[in-house]
Amino acid sequence: MAKLNWGMIGGGEGSQIGPAHRISAAMDGIYTMAAGALDVNAEKGRDYARRLGVPADRAYGDWREMLDGERARADRVDLVTVATPNATHCEITKAFLEAGINVLCEKPMTVTVDQAEDIVATAKKSGSICAVNYGYSGYALVRHMRAMVARGDLGKIRLIKAEFAHGFHADAADLDNPRVRWRYDPAQAGISAQFADCGIHALHMASFVAGQNPSELSADFVSCLEGRALEDDATVNFRMDGGAVLRLWTSSVAIGRMHGLAIQVFGEKGGLRWAQEWPNQLYWTPLNGRTQIMERGGPDLSPEADRASRVTIGHAEGMPLAFANIYADLAEAIAAKKQGRAIDPLADHYPKAIDGLRSIAAIAAAVESARNHGQWTDARPPSLR
Amino acid sequence: MAKLNWGMIGGGEGSQIGPAHRISAAMDGIYTMAAGALDVNAEKGRDYARRLGVPADRAYGDWREMLDGERARADRVDLVTVATPNATHCEITKAFLEAGINVLCEKPMTVTVDQAEDIVATAKKSGSICAVNYGYSGYALVRHMRAMVARGDLGKIRLIKAEFAHGFHADAADLDNPRVRWRYDPAQAGISAQFADCGIHALHMASFVAGQNPSELSADFVSCLEGRALEDDATVNFRMDGGAVLRLWTSSVAIGRMHGLAIQVFGEKGGLRWAQEWPNQLYWTPLNGRTQIMERGGPDLSPEADRASRVTIGHAEGMPLAFANIYADLAEAIAAKKQGRAIDPLADHYPKAIDGLRSIAAIAAAVESARNHGQWTDARPPSLR
Amino acid sequence: MAKLNWGMIGGGEGSQIGPAHRISAAMDGIYTMAAGALDVNAEKGRDYARRLGVPADRAYGDWREMLDGERARADRVDLVTVATPNATHCEITKAFLEAGINVLCEKPMTVTVDQAEDIVATAKKSGSICAVNYGYSGYALVRHMRAMVARGDLGKIRLIKAEFAHGFHADAADLDNPRVRWRYDPAQAGISAQFADCGIHALHMASFVAGQNPSELSADFVSCLEGRALEDDATVNFRMDGGAVLRLWTSSVAIGRMHGLAIQVFGEKGGLRWAQEWPNQLYWTPLNGRTQIMERGGPDLSPEADRASRVTIGHAEGMPLAFANIYADLAEAIAAKKQGRAIDPLADHYPKAIDGLRSIAAIAAAVESARNHGQWTDARPPSLR
Amino acid sequence: MAKLNWGMIGGGEGSQIGPAHRISAAMDGIYTMAAGALDVNAEKGRDYARRLGVPADRAYGDWREMLDGERARADRVDLVTVATPNATHCEITKAFLEAGINVLCEKPMTVTVDQAEDIVATAKKSGSICAVNYGYSGYALVRHMRAMVARGDLGKIRLIKAEFAHGFHADAADLDNPRVRWRYDPAQAGISAQFADCGIHALHMASFVAGQNPSELSADFVSCLEGRALEDDATVNFRMDGGAVLRLWTSSVAIGRMHGLAIQVFGEKGGLRWAQEWPNQLYWTPLNGRTQIMERGGPDLSPEADRASRVTIGHAEGMPLAFANIYADLAEAIAAKKQGRAIDPLADHYPKAIDGLRSIAAIAAAVESARNHGQWTDARPPSLR
Repeated sequence: MAKLNWGMIGGGEGSQIGPAHRISAAMDGIYTMAAGALDVNAEKGRDYARRLGVPADRAYGDWREMLDGERARADRVDLVTVATPNATHCEITKAFLEAGINVLCEKPMTVTVDQAEDIVATAKKSGSICAVNYGYSGYALVRHMRAMVARGDLGKIRLIKAEFAHGFHADAADLDNPRVRWRYDPAQAGISAQFADCGIHALHMASFVAGQNPSELSADFVSCLEGRALEDDATVNFRMDGGAVLRLWTSSVAIGRMHGLAIQVFGEKGGLRWAQEWPNQLYWTPLNGRTQIMERGGPDLSPEADRASRVTIGHAEGMPLAFANIYADLAEAIAAKKQGRAIDPLADHYPKAIDGLRSIAAIAAAVESARNHGQWTDARPPSLR
Repeated sequence: MAKLNWGMIGGGEGSQIGPAHRISAAMDGIYTMAAGALDVNAEKGRDYARRLGVPADRAYGDWREMLDGERARADRVDLVTVATPNATHCEITKAFLEAGINVLCEKPMTVTVDQAEDIVATAKKSGSICAVNYGYSGYALVRHMRAMVARGDLGKIRLIKAEFAHGFHADAADLDNPRVRWRYDPAQAGISAQFADCGIHALHMASFVAGQNPSELSADFVSCLEGRALEDDATVNFRMDGGAVLRLWTSSVAIGRMHGLAIQVFGEKGGLRWAQEWPNQLYWTPLNGRTQIMERGGPDLSPEADRASRVTIGHAEGMPLAFANIYADLAEAIAAKKQGRAIDPLADHYPKAIDGLRSIAAIAAAVESARNHGQWTDARPPSLR
Repeated sequence: MAKLNWGMIGGGEGSQIGPAHRISAAMDGIYTMAAGALDVNAEKGRDYARRLGVPADRAYGDWREMLDGERARADRVDLVTVATPNATHCEITKAFLEAGINVLCEKPMTVTVDQAEDIVATAKKSGSICAVNYGYSGYALVRHMRAMVARGDLGKIRLIKAEFAHGFHADAADLDNPRVRWRYDPAQAGISAQFADCGIHALHMASFVAGQNPSELSADFVSCLEGRALEDDATVNFRMDGGAVLRLWTSSVAIGRMHGLAIQVFGEKGGLRWAQEWPNQLYWTPLNGRTQIMERGGPDLSPEADRASRVTIGHAEGMPLAFANIYADLAEAIAAKKQGRAIDPLADHYPKAIDGLRSIAAIAAAVESARNHGQWTDARPPSLR
Repeated sequence: MAKLNWGMIGGGEGSQIGPAHRISAAMDGIYTMAAGALDVNAEKGRDYARRLGVPADRAYGDWREMLDGERARADRVDLVTVATPNATHCEITKAFLEAGINVLCEKPMTVTVDQAEDIVATAKKSGSICAVNYGYSGYALVRHMRAMVARGDLGKIRLIKAEFAHGFHADAADLDNPRVRWRYDPAQAGISAQFADCGIHALHMASFVAGQNPSELSADFVSCLEGRALEDDATVNFRMDGGAVLRLWTSSVAIGRMHGLAIQVFGEKGGLRWAQEWPNQLYWTPLNGRTQIMERGGPDLSPEADRASRVTIGHAEGMPLAFANIYADLAEAIAAKKQGRAIDPLADHYPKAIDGLRSIAAIAAAVESARNHGQWTDARPPSLR
């Protein structure tokens, strides 16, 4: 596999998501961190990039400088990861795509549906690859669930339960804590808090595994802590375009729950259960049969799962390896594009701009439904109605 | 503890619930099975009762015969358990209450709200005890959750998640199987299937633990198997009268789930998690603290939990012992009534007719809401509005 | 099933094991507690028995009085449970057996091997039934493991791992606590503490499930708390007479472990795992296949398991129901003896005097081996060499 | 952190351990894979190294060529990982150490005790760093256990239970399968199979966590599959030099067990439980208190655990991140050596040659003890007696 140059925007010193991206991109030895604009503070960003090994002339002060700098180089970055505040995703992503540079954008891809439609259109027009980091979809056993559904092991999917419930915003003493407060402030967070932050991971996973997208939805948003303008807990019921019902719960006040991303999929011929916190086991129950434990790395999984496994059975794999699978998929997608050939179908599982758009449309629809006391609301992006 | 005479109506040979009641009533050596009308087939019922040790003259052919027979006796039964088809609960329960005989009625207590109101009124007027068998509320650690909430360990309750999800009605080949079909036939099952059958257990548990009752609700009912007139899967969102939000899911098509009764309770000061299938552990997370595992039988529980435990820590207790706690509470309630004294407050946790009424009102409201696309609907019984 | 008269010796007010026996014997409605000598203090014992519903003339002051009283009655007890201090088991059990009264003796059956041989011989000569309360062998899924091994599902058994590890004697502050101290005092407890108290449960379970008995053993006993004359932690390696290796660990200083009785069985064709604290699931892995979860009450188990299940799948069953299975087996054994017919083979799984003897011989051998630095020692009872 | 040059010997295409090392070394962006001699087949090794991005002139045909080549360079590798067959570890490791190149050697470090003593002496004399890859000791919560013990949270350690039990060599049909056979062939595997392969991981973990080393041991080795000259299942009891008892079990015939590395540590003041397959939770029970679940990434852990965590709480971390911690420690050790300063104490937790020696001595002692029917045998290396 040819080496690729990689750049990062955002993810500066002290950020949570920055290290996860760097670990995941570095792991397979394909990506070299060649450029970066890591911080809103230009000097801090340059300094940190240099300390991370980025050559001085590619340690940029901001993303515009980086765009200009990279555009001018023959060895310009093959992929840029955008991990800046949500409100800036659209402008940055669009600019790089238009410059012919592939982008992996953090979720949520944009703040408004119009922006998301814009990104999708830009990616299409430019021919650049635009991925969105629903990184949990990179877990080997999540890939395996998708493969099982796709090849018909479950028959028609009837029902999906998806959750993302943690308890880290439950302390009333944190209402004025800057680390927490901005998330529930419409001026900073937009129209939705917990659903836009965590709920869409659960939604994407349901869509990814079931191969179905939301048609309409009914939402119930609540703010469990007084004084919060945005929801810290929500349930959303969906009707999916392939006929399944999706029931989704997300919460940030579920004290004792750590991460809580989990999915259950029920079809005519069997049921599946998986949880992100214990990602190396998948529970599969065929209709009228016993529950079986599928182990990551086992000899009896799909090619999709095998491709996404790095160490032998019984050795735990975790989230950075799931993220690394997104990067590995993108490496193949970029190589295929460069070589003018079709992508290996086993690598074509990374989340794309269209998936990002669908999430943003679902956020807008859920907010509208919640305001209308749960009224059923069209969840599709305008361009896909 | 003085011995009590106990009778049963329904629960004939081959029934599932009959043995559970007999085991649970027998366990503590207080109740003697003194009378019974166990089967719609009078002769079969008499024969089976005699084989179970009921004296021949108290092995009745039907409940009216039993009512007449027992009313005439000095040693008449102290308690009758009604475990007949749902549509008959009201008439039988009412008749026995009016005769001054205490009743433990299976759930759902009645088929209509009017009937349920009638039972509540009858119980009040007659002075007879009327309990409803939400038997899972008898588990020691369920009692402990209730005690923790009542004494303020969790602070104000914000959010409750309750589930009852199994997968035993998921096989399309069973659509015409008589064992399953009647449950989804409005002519036999009434207005609701899965919510009325299982969902109300989850609802009662939420109310029992949180000490709050439903004010209004919004329901989404679906039939995952084609051809079913009644729901086999439902979510219902509640607003409770103490300010909590309750989110409830129930399903009979969740292949791989066995029983699935589980509850999570989140308050200002901590969160609780418990599941019926592994009832001897309770997970408690104080705000900003670590999750702790509370063991049934441990030295650090409440008097409510201690009273409901029979064997030492580390020895599994199961459902029949939970049901036995309902019977033990009733023994104390009956003794107190006989002796004209107040009941031991630790025994006053058995579910009562008013709890049955609240469930029936919630079923009616949920059905109405589901028909109206999730419209928020008053969930209270008319008499309590 | 005909009713039986049951009596108890020991198990007085405040004892742990007394209530477990009464619950378990009462549950199926077969046994009537007709007699008892419940306490070393004659008056307390009589009083408590009467309060438990025993007729005044059968509420005895001690076991000799009870033996005399019952022997003289036509309606004498069909079964006596002996739950007195270990050192008295032999004398009492022998006396009742010789009087033609069947006995369920608590474990350990006796204190010395000679006594145990004596009981076995007495039971044989008298024709009375002598059972030993390895009550955990009554769990439905333990019965199922035994059935799976017996019918060859695992092929030849190679290896068994058995544990019984709790942490309730780990507090150095309890060294002089009378509740704990006697257990490690040779004058009161005999030659072994933890192995004789808990280890033999694990040993019996291994023998019961595998259908093999110990041939020889090597033991390592330690006293983790200074000042203890007897072991509080032990491992014993066995060679079984059917060719399996058994590795057993027992501890009373394993802080955080509650009960810890668990077994793993590995054969040529598959492996099994089960734990007493979560007794309703059994994990079965066929060679080169996936692990499957077997649920108690499921449709796919053996007749042995079905007979030992009382409530439907997904409803937890616990230890008192396992003990109740021992009583149910004994009821059938007693009925068969009375009727002069063979016992139902499905009921012939209760532990017998010969099993008690094998345990006592293993204790003696383990103590000897431990004293000889782990020397391999014959573990068989003298009469079976 | 300054970049380091890294080389690998062994770990060729298709090996299991090679990718794990490359992922783990690459993850933090410190090590550049600068050289390699990856395969016994020189051409294959060179080709694979080049495909992995190693410059052509540093893609060596064998380790001697690599030693000569690197020794001659100013930019020679800072660290070499030795992942060749066990019998070659000693010669290769020694040669690189003597050349002043630091080594991370796979376990078992050598085949004989003499060789292991030789490596320890060579490392000391040369001043080169010699680490041994007990990679599981890199898990954040394993580091935390060690820290808890070291700071006295458990008081004096009484008892350790350690296991490494899998079932992947249980199929009799594999007796002649080359993938399995060599492991039980003394000519290829040496004097021990399962204990030397897996057992010493459990032993190292026990020593690492408890801060104690073996004094003497008694071993029971068995071959569950007929025709195996070496053990596929073993228990070893140890007395540790700090007074603890260690009980260790390892097996390769435990069908249904996947990896099975797990540890329990019991002290005067509490107990710990941890398992490699679910490495993000640690169970801690203080004496007379409730079991608490410690989550990797939580705010309440030790500096040792914090340093070993890369992603936020609730996100699974796995084995490659544990291995990466060994590499990160080594990077600090190498930097400190270069700069002539003391190593950061938080990084000084990587396993060293002395740990490798202790393991080899324990293997030899266990084999001797097993041959002598479990005789207690000195487990210390000769140089440490």
